Amino acid sequence: MDPSEVIRIHGTSGTTGRPTAFAIGRQDWHRIANAHARIMWGAGIRPSDTIFIGSFFSLYMGSWGTLAGGERLGAKCFPFGAGVPGQTLMGLSWIKEIKPTAFYGTPSYALYMAEVAKENGYDCRKDFSFRIMFFSGEPGAGIPSTRRLIEETYGCKCVDMGSTAEMTPWMTNGECEHRQGMHLWNDIVYTELVDPKSMRRVGYGSEGVPVYTHLERTSQPMIRFWSGDLALWTDEPCPCGRTYPRLPKGIYGRVDDMLVIRGENVYPSAIEEVLRGMEGFGGEFRIIVSREKALDELRVQAEYSQELQLLAKKDPQVLEKFQKEMAARIKSKIGLRPVIQLEAPGTLERTQFKARRVIDQRKLFQDK
Amino acid sequence: MDPSEVIRIHGTSGTTGRPTAFAIGRQDWHRIANAHARIMWGAGIRPSDTIFIGSFFSLYMGSWGTLAGGERLGAKCFPFGAGVPGQTLMGLSWIKEIKPTAFYGTPSYALYMAEVAKENGYDCRKDFSFRIMFFSGEPGAGIPSTRRLIEETYGCKCVDMGSTAEMTPWMTNGECEHRQGMHLWNDIVYTELVDPKSMRRVGYGSEGVPVYTHLERTSQPMIRFWSGDLALWTDEPCPCGRTYPRLPKGIYGRVDDMLVIRGENVYPSAIEEVLRGMEGFGGEFRIIVSREKALDELRVQAEYSQELQLLAKKDPQVLEKFQKEMAARIKSKIGLRPVIQLEAPGTLERTQFKARRVIDQRKLFQDK
Repeated sequence: MDPSEVIRIHGTSGTTGRPTAFAIGRQDWHRIANAHARIMWGAGIRPSDTIFIGSFFSLYMGSWGTLAGGERLGAKCFPFGAGVPGQTLMGLSWIKEIKPTAFYGTPSYALYMAEVAKENGYDCRKDFSFRIMFFSGEPGAGIPSTRRLIEETYGCKCVDMGSTAEMTPWMTNGECEHRQGMHLWNDIVYTELVDPKSMRRVGYGSEGVPVYTHLERTSQPMIRFWSGDLALWTDEPCPCGRTYPRLPKGIYGRVDDMLVIRGENVYPSAIEEVLRGMEGFGGEFRIIVSREKALDELRVQAEYSQELQLLAKKDPQVLEKFQKEMAARIKSKIGLRPVIQLEAPGTLERTQFKARRVIDQRKLFQDK
Repeated sequence: MDPSEVIRIHGTSGTTGRPTAFAIGRQDWHRIANAHARIMWGAGIRPSDTIFIGSFFSLYMGSWGTLAGGERLGAKCFPFGAGVPGQTLMGLSWIKEIKPTAFYGTPSYALYMAEVAKENGYDCRKDFSFRIMFFSGEPGAGIPSTRRLIEETYGCKCVDMGSTAEMTPWMTNGECEHRQGMHLWNDIVYTELVDPKSMRRVGYGSEGVPVYTHLERTSQPMIRFWSGDLALWTDEPCPCGRTYPRLPKGIYGRVDDMLVIRGENVYPSAIEEVLRGMEGFGGEFRIIVSREKALDELRVQAEYSQELQLLAKKDPQVLEKFQKEMAARIKSKIGLRPVIQLEAPGTLERTQFKARRVIDQRKLFQDK
């Protein structure tokens, strides 16, 4: 594709500090709209629906793909967005007023929205009218307990979608109304599950890493893109009649140690690199990810050095400055601001195992 | 238009607490794109430009209109948005990387962005490549001193645009590259200046209130919509050759007491209504709008009653609760959180003049 045909620039903040840009051509934008319209129709969305898009309109493409698909399908779109302080409360009054019948966003945002609703006297079933809520950006909608919680909270069907940032907005893993696991819409993005070691395709009924190939993209197409996710696939028939392979348990793990925190891909090694590059770092650390009120929190426990300890005895502000500097450097590297908890030298248990330094308390991929 | 043809819902949070929705039809969305493409071309935007859209994608339509117009014109659009904490700093690294040549947003956001850039070691002229920056959402780009500041800061042409929320995204007041005042693109939205009292059209060279009529909109068209703004119009020729009337001094005032704070229309009477509805309010108040680091701040000084004063002597938390409740009620009414400054009974000077209760320190419409 000629660069002059690019009409849209998006991207991810990346974990290397250097942003990754995606340039999308005009014809591709039409293809995105068509693909999404088909997949959203498969999820049960119809032209009579009003879709509340409750996710951030910026670099992230899930929201834009949903908007393009919703317009192509002929539904009414209400691109409300998310992420601005105070926006959720205002959104609730709009949802009560406009009565959208469909919702797109992340599962954790839908749960957060329900909490804000409850605190402010709304009844999610009586005051709102969501018939279908469909999700991408993080796992959750495919986990039975989370799905049940969302369906019971809103009185809706909870539909799981989503592949990986590099393939978006071709969100070609998508459940149908029967919610028997995501179909792989293989005529749009060809998807195979491969063995993590041999990288050869595994048989149906087996676990593997989804590997994606754009079939109809001309701007920055990817061939056999390695997602690093874990899933199991099957070719057993679905009640909807579609013959695409399915991921009956959704995407339920990673083969590497990548974390998804508030929609950002974070490698613990990127945080480690920042720490080890700071004079005054004491050598040991922990990365703790938790979920408070449905919002992810990243906490970094880091030891300071004995030299810094000596300096701090003369000037107590030294540690405070060090802490702020650490938070700023990590934010600039991974795009998320962590809570920094400084520890005295030698406090944390020494470990040679990287995995033991990362504590994910969210149990994202597990049924609770 | 049949309601089934609606494809987009937007709106304003309004000042009455009840949101005002705008429903836009599919054909209208094409018209929006065409109108914006023409007006943006008039401002000097070309298909070779990359447009950084640095304003919020949600209810507000300026950003969406710019995106539709930019795509129709054939430029590359980078819909980055604004408003999320930390987003500006991340945006700067993208601007340095991608080198967009055009910018759309509000003048105050462009100035805020320049401050963040400076604090973080960027040089707005050397690190960025903005050739044209065009604005709507608030006055500023039409005020000579502000325009000069933006042009000198970024080394760009600063172009003023914008009419009023009810007419958007038909942003049919728009300057051309020569920046001699906004042209009224009268074949898209018919615009007249009328006398504020007689409501009759005034002659060229006179001051009046712009009154707008949609000519090509089929969803919620407005006929002779009263903007309440103040401007002066002329039919003197512009170097660009366009024969539209012009507003050589832009929009420079209001005939009522409406304030525009962070892009929200705020009537002091709405705040007064909240205060007078609260038991414990002492009867007198001041509304102070200021600008800190290019961001508007709304401060409300309010007296509490003698009854509350007595209660507070027993329980000092009474005042704190009252203050929080006041902030929350005002936020819910006008969509903005004010800083509340409680005053003892009888502290504020009594006035019968509403205007004296409102202190706008920003001097938005004045050349500094």
